[in-house]
Amino acid sequence: MSIKTEDDFKKFVEEASSKDGYKRALGFGIARVDFGQKNEDKVLQATYPIINWQENYASATVFIEALKNSGIDVDFSGSEFVADLSKEFATKALEIFTPYIDDAIGDAHKNIQVVKHLEQMVDEDNYRVCFIFEDDAPHSVEAVYLKLQALSTAKAKLRSLNLNGAFGLLSNVAWSGNTPIELDWLRDNEIELKMIGEYPYIDSVDKFPRYLQHIIPADNTRVLDTSKVRFGAQLAGGTTVMPGASYINFNAGTLGAVMVEGRISSSAIVGAGSDVGGGASILGVLSGTDGNPISIGENTLLGANSTTGIPLGDGCIVDAGLSILAGTKITITDEEIAKIIAVNKDAKITNTIKAEKLQSLNGIHFRADSISGQIQARRSTREIKLNEELH
Amino acid sequence: MSIKTEDDFKKFVEEASSKDGYKRALGFGIARVDFGQKNEDKVLQATYPIINWQENYASATVFIEALKNSGIDVDFSGSEFVADLSKEFATKALEIFTPYIDDAIGDAHKNIQVVKHLEQMVDEDNYRVCFIFEDDAPHSVEAVYLKLQALSTAKAKLRSLNLNGAFGLLSNVAWSGNTPIELDWLRDNEIELKMIGEYPYIDSVDKFPRYLQHIIPADNTRVLDTSKVRFGAQLAGGTTVMPGASYINFNAGTLGAVMVEGRISSSAIVGAGSDVGGGASILGVLSGTDGNPISIGENTLLGANSTTGIPLGDGCIVDAGLSILAGTKITITDEEIAKIIAVNKDAKITNTIKAEKLQSLNGIHFRADSISGQIQARRSTREIKLNEELH
Amino acid sequence: MSIKTEDDFKKFVEEASSKDGYKRALGFGIARVDFGQKNEDKVLQATYPIINWQENYASATVFIEALKNSGIDVDFSGSEFVADLSKEFATKALEIFTPYIDDAIGDAHKNIQVVKHLEQMVDEDNYRVCFIFEDDAPHSVEAVYLKLQALSTAKAKLRSLNLNGAFGLLSNVAWSGNTPIELDWLRDNEIELKMIGEYPYIDSVDKFPRYLQHIIPADNTRVLDTSKVRFGAQLAGGTTVMPGASYINFNAGTLGAVMVEGRISSSAIVGAGSDVGGGASILGVLSGTDGNPISIGENTLLGANSTTGIPLGDGCIVDAGLSILAGTKITITDEEIAKIIAVNKDAKITNTIKAEKLQSLNGIHFRADSISGQIQARRSTREIKLNEELH
Repeated sequence: MSIKTEDDFKKFVEEASSKDGYKRALGFGIARVDFGQKNEDKVLQATYPIINWQENYASATVFIEALKNSGIDVDFSGSEFVADLSKEFATKALEIFTPYIDDAIGDAHKNIQVVKHLEQMVDEDNYRVCFIFEDDAPHSVEAVYLKLQALSTAKAKLRSLNLNGAFGLLSNVAWSGNTPIELDWLRDNEIELKMIGEYPYIDSVDKFPRYLQHIIPADNTRVLDTSKVRFGAQLAGGTTVMPGASYINFNAGTLGAVMVEGRISSSAIVGAGSDVGGGASILGVLSGTDGNPISIGENTLLGANSTTGIPLGDGCIVDAGLSILAGTKITITDEEIAKIIAVNKDAKITNTIKAEKLQSLNGIHFRADSISGQIQARRSTREIKLNEELH
Repeated sequence: MSIKTEDDFKKFVEEASSKDGYKRALGFGIARVDFGQKNEDKVLQATYPIINWQENYASATVFIEALKNSGIDVDFSGSEFVADLSKEFATKALEIFTPYIDDAIGDAHKNIQVVKHLEQMVDEDNYRVCFIFEDDAPHSVEAVYLKLQALSTAKAKLRSLNLNGAFGLLSNVAWSGNTPIELDWLRDNEIELKMIGEYPYIDSVDKFPRYLQHIIPADNTRVLDTSKVRFGAQLAGGTTVMPGASYINFNAGTLGAVMVEGRISSSAIVGAGSDVGGGASILGVLSGTDGNPISIGENTLLGANSTTGIPLGDGCIVDAGLSILAGTKITITDEEIAKIIAVNKDAKITNTIKAEKLQSLNGIHFRADSISGQIQARRSTREIKLNEELH
Repeated sequence: MSIKTEDDFKKFVEEASSKDGYKRALGFGIARVDFGQKNEDKVLQATYPIINWQENYASATVFIEALKNSGIDVDFSGSEFVADLSKEFATKALEIFTPYIDDAIGDAHKNIQVVKHLEQMVDEDNYRVCFIFEDDAPHSVEAVYLKLQALSTAKAKLRSLNLNGAFGLLSNVAWSGNTPIELDWLRDNEIELKMIGEYPYIDSVDKFPRYLQHIIPADNTRVLDTSKVRFGAQLAGGTTVMPGASYINFNAGTLGAVMVEGRISSSAIVGAGSDVGGGASILGVLSGTDGNPISIGENTLLGANSTTGIPLGDGCIVDAGLSILAGTKITITDEEIAKIIAVNKDAKITNTIKAEKLQSLNGIHFRADSISGQIQARRSTREIKLNEELH
């Protein structure tokens, strides 16, 4: 079957995707894969020029057909499928993409651009395609990287993906620039590399690369130190990550313009207009919140060196240096209770209350009285923009 | 007019600088300029091998005359002037510099050394001269970089320069080593770069480069992580910046040997012999001080994880973990008031007082009573070296 | 004497090491040495492919004999001896090593592997051998690097080595990747390097390199940002160093799997299973402990933004944001005193007690009462694994 027009293409895709057992891919992409220097079959990193997440289903169909035409049958029975790619695959795919090939430049038809580059590769041994059919626990390095990229590009919402076991799939490697190096290979070659003065400069030893190794942020987003944001984090446009004590883990991040000078731990999310002060800690599911992931609302201020272990609503303030954990007893006057309830209709608040009972309320100002040492809550002076979606 | 002797040179400069409309440049320098990869006229960075700030006025005169002789009339009507440089400019300038050319080596006549290098450049398209005639808000990237370098080399005092609108002039770019890369260019080339394995390693995405990209610190100054000090910061000799939670923003820094393990925010200044403990925050004009820039005196200790929102004098202590903000109520005994007034003659101090009323006093020790929870002030045990200039 | 068999070798070594004045080396190794760009005799860094510490004494003997045979007599009278190495040295050493040469691959006979590489070096001008005979204050850069490597490889225990004066021996240099650059050389060449666009990217300016420049960590150890761990630190397998506010200084580190998100200052040691929370500070001998180095036991939790100025036992908790310094007054109820004594047999505890009197006790939970502001101690809920060795 020769595909010359867009109609031909549509018909082809419709037929192919109607075949028995065909499954629509939740996400897919073609990756350049880095293999181990010592264990040459071990995948250390998968770099996707472009990923697809709940989109571009026709391209997935083309890839599946091109694989078939180059000798590989996609197995739809599992939650994911990974295959090596060949120049033949690229040729077969481009045959199907014929009507769009000339338009595949700039922002148009990026999957086709990827295949065009693939066809030109002299060394075609390190390209793979990954399809994720169901959001099950990932089974391959390629699937983990695809999901992390879906999070970091905001194609998937934070906390929405199944990453169970991801740590176990990734190798702990030495990162020298964008190149992952097996620790065992370094050990085997340490003497020679050091003697000849070519021991590589290692930026980090980790299972994950850094966000900026794979992601181009929005024009108004700033990351002052690449080590501060892990791949899999999500930074909304306008976010600034300062280099002091800040850090944003994978599956954590911001939903709008946020000033980040503190730590946003794994699974923590911060809303637009909020400020994570210098050294402020938002505890994560791996550290201190008993698995209860923390959302911080919009326009909320976490003061310098404060620690927050409960979710907060919009327009809150945690004063500098204060620690608000789930069990922290908070004192509130009747007058302030009235003011807080005015902006949190259904809240049940008593004069002495554990902080966890105030979680996700709007307009709370946590402070310490420096005469009595008491930790108190008041109605904050910050503006509250109600954001139903967030809470 | 042929210039052969130093007298010829002086006469020439005197005449040229006496011309109608001539203005003495407050600062000037020749920069190598990095242009955008996509927007080829956009200046991303200006690297000055040497800047002049309220000095070397004769060299400015020579540059202005050499520009004229190579076809460019300097416009003295604005607060600054930027021009492209050509090999012809270099030749003309060196003709005027004739009597000094042979001596222009090592520490002598650095402006002439710059012009000598300029004359040898094969590709002369990316050199510019910038003159700043008045300390007005900068109008060019070149002027911003010149001012930041004046601050970082301590040729201009911290807080002394007009940087209004500087952020708006600088592009937010991806820094790969010393090379600024336009984010849009990265986007346009992402697929190709990733497919061929040549995606650049990005150290940061920011409008500013880092201090160490442009500045050679004093022999006894240490910066353990380049990301921790922004270009435009000032580090006096003997300053050590540790890699934990520290950070020094532009237009902020130290006036003497200071141990920095915490954050010195924009416009904050720390005096000699002081110690900014691990994770200590000095709030900046952009974060929490209502535009009141904070000076910390000499021999003052900010404890680990403390936060300081008021200016402090010499010989003060803020205990580890304490937050002293403008409105923090401080309790002081009569006995300690007497001791504090003994070293702060005109201070008005009451038993309960807001921290801002204690600002800039010497010898104050802020502490929390761990029995009562009260925040108190005492006379510190630290030595006070009165430093009139600082306060 | 020709050495053909292992017996020949053993006999040779026995005779050589029985000579009058011969001393067994505590540590020794062959290093590639980086010299100054300006001061060409100045050693900026010594990179050891392998060091020996209280081991491989026969290899030391061979090196000493090979030096002698190539014209250099080792001086045993001092605490250390450093010599330049030549190709002739390598040849002489390999003659003695004859029976082992073919086996010297992989993990076997690493000293011989080093010498084999040395023999192949075209440029042999930058290799040196260093012997340390006594753990005296180091007298050479080579000895400092050897000791730091002994600490970082855990061949020597933390705090066990004499490093007096080490700072004075090391030059403060600009590190560009693994290359140390003299600041004076940078100054001399600043104009040219900047004009031609080849000014080096500087990662840090420090006397020490970073841990990962010299050390390959265990497979399960992660260092998310190389700037966070100084050479001379020790990281036990399973340790994770996050990139937020963490930092581990030289002669400090971990004895087991530790999560490090805070600062482990010089001479501080943390036991297995403990957690140094985000921004937590363990004070060091150079900062706030009056020279009393801090050990933290096993399974102890230092909460986010806490500060610890006293040694702690196993199973302790310092709540987030709390500062426990030697003089901090702690309040304890009779009931909690009884529980604490139950796991700390000989402890003397009163209802109000300075924190230093609780130092190194197991199972203490330090907390602030948020109603009264009081800092209290209780029996923690953490498991205590008594570890006699640590305390």
